[in-house]
Amino acid sequence: MQQQATSPAPVSRQLSRDEALRLLGNVTFGRIVFISRAIPALRFVAHAMDGDGLLIGLRYEPEIAALLRRVCHVVYEADLLDAATRLGWSVVLTGRAGLVEDPQEVKQAQIRLQAWPGELVDVVVRLRPELVTGFQVAAGPLAS
Amino acid sequence: MQQQATSPAPVSRQLSRDEALRLLGNVTFGRIVFISRAIPALRFVAHAMDGDGLLIGLRYEPEIAALLRRVCHVVYEADLLDAATRLGWSVVLTGRAGLVEDPQEVKQAQIRLQAWPGELVDVVVRLRPELVTGFQVAAGPLAS
Repeated sequence: MQQQATSPAPVSRQLSRDEALRLLGNVTFGRIVFISRAIPALRFVAHAMDGDGLLIGLRYEPEIAALLRRVCHVVYEADLLDAATRLGWSVVLTGRAGLVEDPQEVKQAQIRLQAWPGELVDVVVRLRPELVTGFQVAAGPLAS
Repeated sequence: MQQQATSPAPVSRQLSRDEALRLLGNVTFGRIVFISRAIPALRFVAHAMDGDGLLIGLRYEPEIAALLRRVCHVVYEADLLDAATRLGWSVVLTGRAGLVEDPQEVKQAQIRLQAWPGELVDVVVRLRPELVTGFQVAAGPLAS
């Protein structure tokens, strides 16, 4: 798209692991992706930082629960991007996730995880991020 | 989270296929998910509606190009959600995607697909949605 003469061109840069994890803590929801029956599946979920890991709250589905009972590879994405200007950031975590099964831990996580209206967080997953990547798009300097 | 006494509780509802595809046409980017080396992978991409299908523009990566040369199952998600209020919508398409290989078609798609700052759309994919789902969260009626 053509930039207006007066608006600075947006500039994109990669985020460091620390920057990415810090930004992730600023939002409360994202998208978890896993493989179910050899097909990728995506769910909109709530998250909360938990030390070096991420707690993720899902609604119960038999397939997801069975899948995550064995630790499995997942991808998690969260972002804060303006739909019109595209300024903002996106963070992608890749790692292993597994069900939190201790009832006390589940209860504590449920208090922190903010469910969607009309939804319940009844399955809690802990993701240990291995690869953390992300980008940030900011308004660039005015062209001279 | 506790609702303030004066703010209406948000209400969530499922979208029909037609509603979901119409909303998808209102935004220009989303997330494509596919399976690469038995692990889910996610990329932030540009999209444009194309009749019953979706054109998706990616940056060239050897693995992605090789993967999509054979038609494969992908998931595509796009949304417009307010991070603070969580009002908005999310749409998920599941279907088969394949590379657009005709140079003329690629050129036309590149004009329509809005790349990220500093990025190029050099791989164009057509997704034929099979399953289309989505939800919308709107401010509900004021509690009486």
